[in-house]
Amino acid sequence: MSRKVPVAIVGANGYSGEELCAILAGHPYVSVVAVTSRQHAGKPAGEVLPRLSRVGEFSKLVFSEPAMDLLLGSGAEFFFLALPHGLAAEYAVPLWQAGKRVIDLSADFRLRDAEVYREFYGEQHPAAKLLPEAVYGLPELHRHAIRAAKLVGSAGCYPTSILLPLVPLLKAGLIDSGDITVASASGVSGAGRKAETVLLFGECNESLRAYGLPKHRHLSEIEQELSLAASRQVAITFTPHLAPMTRGIHTTIFTRIAAGVSCEGILPALAAAYADEPFVRVSQSLPDTKNVTGTNFCDISARFDARTGRLILLSAEDNLVKGAAGQAVQNFNLMAGLDETAGLL
Amino acid sequence: MSRKVPVAIVGANGYSGEELCAILAGHPYVSVVAVTSRQHAGKPAGEVLPRLSRVGEFSKLVFSEPAMDLLLGSGAEFFFLALPHGLAAEYAVPLWQAGKRVIDLSADFRLRDAEVYREFYGEQHPAAKLLPEAVYGLPELHRHAIRAAKLVGSAGCYPTSILLPLVPLLKAGLIDSGDITVASASGVSGAGRKAETVLLFGECNESLRAYGLPKHRHLSEIEQELSLAASRQVAITFTPHLAPMTRGIHTTIFTRIAAGVSCEGILPALAAAYADEPFVRVSQSLPDTKNVTGTNFCDISARFDARTGRLILLSAEDNLVKGAAGQAVQNFNLMAGLDETAGLL
Amino acid sequence: MSRKVPVAIVGANGYSGEELCAILAGHPYVSVVAVTSRQHAGKPAGEVLPRLSRVGEFSKLVFSEPAMDLLLGSGAEFFFLALPHGLAAEYAVPLWQAGKRVIDLSADFRLRDAEVYREFYGEQHPAAKLLPEAVYGLPELHRHAIRAAKLVGSAGCYPTSILLPLVPLLKAGLIDSGDITVASASGVSGAGRKAETVLLFGECNESLRAYGLPKHRHLSEIEQELSLAASRQVAITFTPHLAPMTRGIHTTIFTRIAAGVSCEGILPALAAAYADEPFVRVSQSLPDTKNVTGTNFCDISARFDARTGRLILLSAEDNLVKGAAGQAVQNFNLMAGLDETAGLL
Amino acid sequence: MSRKVPVAIVGANGYSGEELCAILAGHPYVSVVAVTSRQHAGKPAGEVLPRLSRVGEFSKLVFSEPAMDLLLGSGAEFFFLALPHGLAAEYAVPLWQAGKRVIDLSADFRLRDAEVYREFYGEQHPAAKLLPEAVYGLPELHRHAIRAAKLVGSAGCYPTSILLPLVPLLKAGLIDSGDITVASASGVSGAGRKAETVLLFGECNESLRAYGLPKHRHLSEIEQELSLAASRQVAITFTPHLAPMTRGIHTTIFTRIAAGVSCEGILPALAAAYADEPFVRVSQSLPDTKNVTGTNFCDISARFDARTGRLILLSAEDNLVKGAAGQAVQNFNLMAGLDETAGLL
Repeated sequence: MSRKVPVAIVGANGYSGEELCAILAGHPYVSVVAVTSRQHAGKPAGEVLPRLSRVGEFSKLVFSEPAMDLLLGSGAEFFFLALPHGLAAEYAVPLWQAGKRVIDLSADFRLRDAEVYREFYGEQHPAAKLLPEAVYGLPELHRHAIRAAKLVGSAGCYPTSILLPLVPLLKAGLIDSGDITVASASGVSGAGRKAETVLLFGECNESLRAYGLPKHRHLSEIEQELSLAASRQVAITFTPHLAPMTRGIHTTIFTRIAAGVSCEGILPALAAAYADEPFVRVSQSLPDTKNVTGTNFCDISARFDARTGRLILLSAEDNLVKGAAGQAVQNFNLMAGLDETAGLL
Repeated sequence: MSRKVPVAIVGANGYSGEELCAILAGHPYVSVVAVTSRQHAGKPAGEVLPRLSRVGEFSKLVFSEPAMDLLLGSGAEFFFLALPHGLAAEYAVPLWQAGKRVIDLSADFRLRDAEVYREFYGEQHPAAKLLPEAVYGLPELHRHAIRAAKLVGSAGCYPTSILLPLVPLLKAGLIDSGDITVASASGVSGAGRKAETVLLFGECNESLRAYGLPKHRHLSEIEQELSLAASRQVAITFTPHLAPMTRGIHTTIFTRIAAGVSCEGILPALAAAYADEPFVRVSQSLPDTKNVTGTNFCDISARFDARTGRLILLSAEDNLVKGAAGQAVQNFNLMAGLDETAGLL
Repeated sequence: MSRKVPVAIVGANGYSGEELCAILAGHPYVSVVAVTSRQHAGKPAGEVLPRLSRVGEFSKLVFSEPAMDLLLGSGAEFFFLALPHGLAAEYAVPLWQAGKRVIDLSADFRLRDAEVYREFYGEQHPAAKLLPEAVYGLPELHRHAIRAAKLVGSAGCYPTSILLPLVPLLKAGLIDSGDITVASASGVSGAGRKAETVLLFGECNESLRAYGLPKHRHLSEIEQELSLAASRQVAITFTPHLAPMTRGIHTTIFTRIAAGVSCEGILPALAAAYADEPFVRVSQSLPDTKNVTGTNFCDISARFDARTGRLILLSAEDNLVKGAAGQAVQNFNLMAGLDETAGLL
Repeated sequence: MSRKVPVAIVGANGYSGEELCAILAGHPYVSVVAVTSRQHAGKPAGEVLPRLSRVGEFSKLVFSEPAMDLLLGSGAEFFFLALPHGLAAEYAVPLWQAGKRVIDLSADFRLRDAEVYREFYGEQHPAAKLLPEAVYGLPELHRHAIRAAKLVGSAGCYPTSILLPLVPLLKAGLIDSGDITVASASGVSGAGRKAETVLLFGECNESLRAYGLPKHRHLSEIEQELSLAASRQVAITFTPHLAPMTRGIHTTIFTRIAAGVSCEGILPALAAAYADEPFVRVSQSLPDTKNVTGTNFCDISARFDARTGRLILLSAEDNLVKGAAGQAVQNFNLMAGLDETAGLL
């Protein structure tokens, strides 16, 4: 176990990329051999990401251009792609062809169906032929396949917070897959480090608003996985909100208990489903984003509204950790045969 | 119109009370003749509320004990009660008996049925005999009755944000009153100026969480008014959340369009219902709390999720203004025969 | 007094411009006849600034191009320029030549000496010939000259918070003009509504940092006015910081009491100097930005550190109100012969 | 190195205590055998501190009463005291007498002179006889003595941020010890998890204010250590501010360069002094609290104001890590003969 696995991070300057650098800098079995950024090529990593200055080997790293020959010559065996969708596929294809293993944090390899990609992302899938090779990177659902995968499409932030509470209940037939409504709220880092007016402090502070209604892109992967779990086509209503905090996603799900199922059984069923999972905490307490930020945990709880017969499921996670970089590292740990929690607990 | 109406504010030291002082200090037709606070009796108003120091007549006001003889001797004709529920009724009864007009910001006079009060507030109603005299203080619903009322139970913060989008649609039979689910998020001031650990900056900042599930007290007045609008008993699921901001409530409502109704008609129906309302803005744009904080506006919009057939209604208001002090002043303006927008625009 | 003065706002889309619109929308003696924005020309004002939608006459206003013929043909007698420095002068010159009266919120007309402008702003003054016509727009210092001025360079945000505590003490010879050090902290709106990465919520939240050291541009106007007050050339050390809040400036000043002066006399001297000022509150309580945001007040206090012999002066203001738009309206009120507090209290 | 050192945390429920738990939960050479809290005795640690639920051995820990017999019987060799001053000494004395080693996070053992304690803390020192045994717990200044100490008074948050930039310059005679002024700003967690109105979210958000002027308690330890470094009695002016963020301290120091010293030499002198320090980063870039929160780093920079001849020193740290819990663990690592950075990088 003492060998350090050489990895590269492509696109290390966004919020997910920086979080990935932070986690991998403290990972006991990883050596980061390359970090790339078109914008910052040539600069010391500690200058671009001052938070990581003098942290382990980041002291010595220099950002390089994301050129394929540099990447292939870096010695890295695993490649994390923290790039916009569309662009990620441009890197994934040659890396895959060169026999490298890829953890993609974008949406490019999360969907099984290129048509769904076109519908939700508004463009042809850039590498549809590779889709059958990719595994949806949510370890709690696809651990076995992730271990063997050469290409993992690491699950998105909203999807993780929605799938983890729902999938075990759908699989067990405990809830009505035809009546699911979701209200989520995300910290502003979820929108990325983009110089846009709507993301300014002066616009987001003391502000709460819904956005992207009614057909957010993440619906595509959410419904794909819910349908798999329910063994029938599932469509849900999903309303994301932007909340004035840097990190964290809180999700509230409204559904109905299946006929003949007792409301008392729901929370125990969730607890049992996740009893051995290192990063899912099921509890009677209502989740709070502040208890999960900076961690790879997803906290889950449930309440039954006896007055209306509705079940309320709640979850909280850090959008940049369990919703992005932490999840990617969890996937990587599985792919590399390491302890799944290495660098994460 | 040049006469100034003498008013008193009982319990001026909480967040709603302070906001009430701020609004009334700038009201062109009001003279504040008494402000009370058990805790701060004897102190100059500008010392207790430094924000209002040297603002108009607040320079000269001194907090007094909330003693009934002082109140009755103050010359005030209208009394704003910004007190906890239960305590408010103790003041409302003698003031009403003395022929004064009362605007109560607590929940004590919002419900028509003392039994519902007992169910949701866990105690006997403190003045059930007065309930038939009280009017629910949401001007957009009960303007006519408010004008004549001697006792108004000013509508609550969450209820206002939920009732304004739903009531016109229920009245017109455009939506399914049997399928209504609500997710709201409130700024922390909604919990009051109470020295409780869970309300500390260090606990609320970078935190988002649901609370009070599944039977929040405000459900009682929400369902009372929804039922009135629908002419049948309505029960809804309501999940409040606490968001890391000082002010603002954002509400997202999920419902279904009634059979035979076109989704295109919903927003125009709302726009028509509120065309002449000075404080309700219906728009295609999604509401954002930052556009309403510090104002008496409630912003409303709607989206239709064609994929699932659900209607999404959204609203935003300032919990301390349209959700509390502004609403109280709007009620007062009606009761006093003033321009409804006086001091509020 | 019932006539409404027609005014135009050039550059109404930044934070200061929007605040100006908000204040003027509620001003009893003003009619806004034109608002301009290169970016938003042709759009209804309520769409660009949704906060002001349906607020008074803003319902009917449409943003226009900032073309000089449109401005001159608008009927406006007073022009507020909420533009970047350099650009403001391009509008001020023709407006001045056309006999209009101008309140410029930029730095273009705050300095008496074009050389100082070149030193601090790094370029030739764009309209040096007009400088002798301009008055420094801090009413507490230059009220008389402002009344008669055709062109006012409204004082900057940091300068206002620094000059108001210091000037009376320097004029009275109570402090040592040779030993003045200032640490100020500003909310993020002070940096303007610019789509820059460093101003993103994710960068500014949970962040506090100094910037612009050691020669911030505002030093030029600060030292100009301090020197005037002290009747000798004054140079100070000034360190601005960015704090994670939308609005507010807090300033802490370190200086020494002049020989023979008693420390007990400082606060009374400040209180006496501002006894009749409507917007300066001198108090024993330490200033807090939250007590002044949304108002045109500057709160001032003082402490003496007997252990080291240093005097500490403290002030707080809203950078967008007393530090920008409120100050501009206060200047306008003086120029237009209106009550100085109209629209501001 | 594989043995785990048994430690106890007394008072684990405040912000510093919780941070200590979080750090020690991930410390590779530590086993936490006891956590105490009067308020929460009997509750599982993961319930009181939900953030740490299911984190390593915290899953199994239960809060106990802080009774001395329980503590002595716990098997712990090292005791962290995260208690209010005064109370800490009550535990330190018997633990010390029993031969245990103590890291106290309170102010009780930071001062050499019980008289100074009485002057600044307003009461007799509760264990003056133990003061000669205690070492001031700032590793960068007293590493050698800390290694051997049985009782360490871990340095305070403000003092750390002020001493680290100043001490090397005073020791080398590069600055004027007679002219030092400090403006610091702290996140709200610095005030502790106390249910006080002034610490509510609604009071602290969008607020910035100075407090505790002019004689903050931390001055006592700051001046003790500055005087040691300068070999003469040093008195400074110190003004703390509360900023609307959870964590982080930013410190700005104004001083003058000693006669004959070149301003160009200051930053290199600091860089040289801290070249081998694992937790001090000297850089040309201005420090930002967001780059150090969650880490044990103190970032330092300097600027020279040639216009006034003043030197400006700047630093940033996490008040709960390098300013409290991280520092305590760094001290512990030294005392226990471990790698100084264990559990901290």
